[in-house]
Amino acid sequence: MSTKIITVSREFGSGGRTIGKEAAQRLGVPYYDKELVKQVALESGFDPKFIEEHGEFAPGKSRFAYAFLNSTFPGTINNLSAADFLWTIQYKVIRELAEQGPCVIVGRCADYILRDRSDCLHTFIHADMDFRSDRIVRLYGESEASPEKRLMDKDAKRRVNYRHYTDREWGMAQNYHLTLNSGVLGIERCVQLLVELAQQG
Amino acid sequence: MSTKIITVSREFGSGGRTIGKEAAQRLGVPYYDKELVKQVALESGFDPKFIEEHGEFAPGKSRFAYAFLNSTFPGTINNLSAADFLWTIQYKVIRELAEQGPCVIVGRCADYILRDRSDCLHTFIHADMDFRSDRIVRLYGESEASPEKRLMDKDAKRRVNYRHYTDREWGMAQNYHLTLNSGVLGIERCVQLLVELAQQG
Repeated sequence: MSTKIITVSREFGSGGRTIGKEAAQRLGVPYYDKELVKQVALESGFDPKFIEEHGEFAPGKSRFAYAFLNSTFPGTINNLSAADFLWTIQYKVIRELAEQGPCVIVGRCADYILRDRSDCLHTFIHADMDFRSDRIVRLYGESEASPEKRLMDKDAKRRVNYRHYTDREWGMAQNYHLTLNSGVLGIERCVQLLVELAQQG
Repeated sequence: MSTKIITVSREFGSGGRTIGKEAAQRLGVPYYDKELVKQVALESGFDPKFIEEHGEFAPGKSRFAYAFLNSTFPGTINNLSAADFLWTIQYKVIRELAEQGPCVIVGRCADYILRDRSDCLHTFIHADMDFRSDRIVRLYGESEASPEKRLMDKDAKRRVNYRHYTDREWGMAQNYHLTLNSGVLGIERCVQLLVELAQQG
């Protein structure tokens, strides 16, 4: 395997984003998370016509509430919900970013979107509830009232979203080349493992 | 984390057993797979009375066919099927082996049995169907007719057995500290990763 692209899926609060960002920095490659991918998509000037021409990427209509793109593109677009519209754009953007060269991509089902490429290292970062609860309270200023509920809600949303768009189970080891418990192994060691595997690849 | 014990769960044909055995050799610690654990259990002279006294380890009656212990202990033992009887013995044996010191244990739901210990590295090894098919035909002399079917059967049995005795999903990343795709990463690199993590632990 020659690794050029690392994808990082993660449980909320596990430090997956931090691990991906730090690994990208040490490897000297671009880092993209879902916000950056969204921004790139919008700045790229994609419009509904583009989506019409690339409808084969659309995985079907979402049953979920119309998402944050609604403010930009109200209602449905070529019978796609806003969530599906965004998925379609991001699918295309992630494919194109991968074509540009080595990078780290966090989130957005990138492991699935790039599953046919042989130059990727697909990873999943998770941790126990205590580790994640402590982390989101400490770093994100989340309410201490029920960080566990917040974690379970976020995990559930990611699980449902992943299943909807990929028809696979979120967190199944078989979807990834490497999965790590960041709470047990430590954030720093997880970064090192990603960097070593990418460099040796 | 101070790692003394490595548990290795694995898909059939993924090389998990080979990886665990080689890692144990390099670390200079004992290696136990399910056959060895079974042998230790039988040689230890466990008998039905022992099981009676340690009934709290029994996870309930198995719905599955009476297993290979039937020839030794026909029928049921204190209302345990032979499969559950063996599970109960092996549960105890694995706990005791872990008490004796650093080791590598492959199979037998050892990740679950030792889940409360903080000195374990729980791992899961898997690989794509092509890699595993080629491997079982080449190494185990499996029939080339339908190695995929053989793999799916073995995986299904392990999945059902794991779910029955642990109430967890086999192969879920969250059950393990580290999962590796041996087909993509390579057997040798998987061995190195286990050894490094155990030594650094």
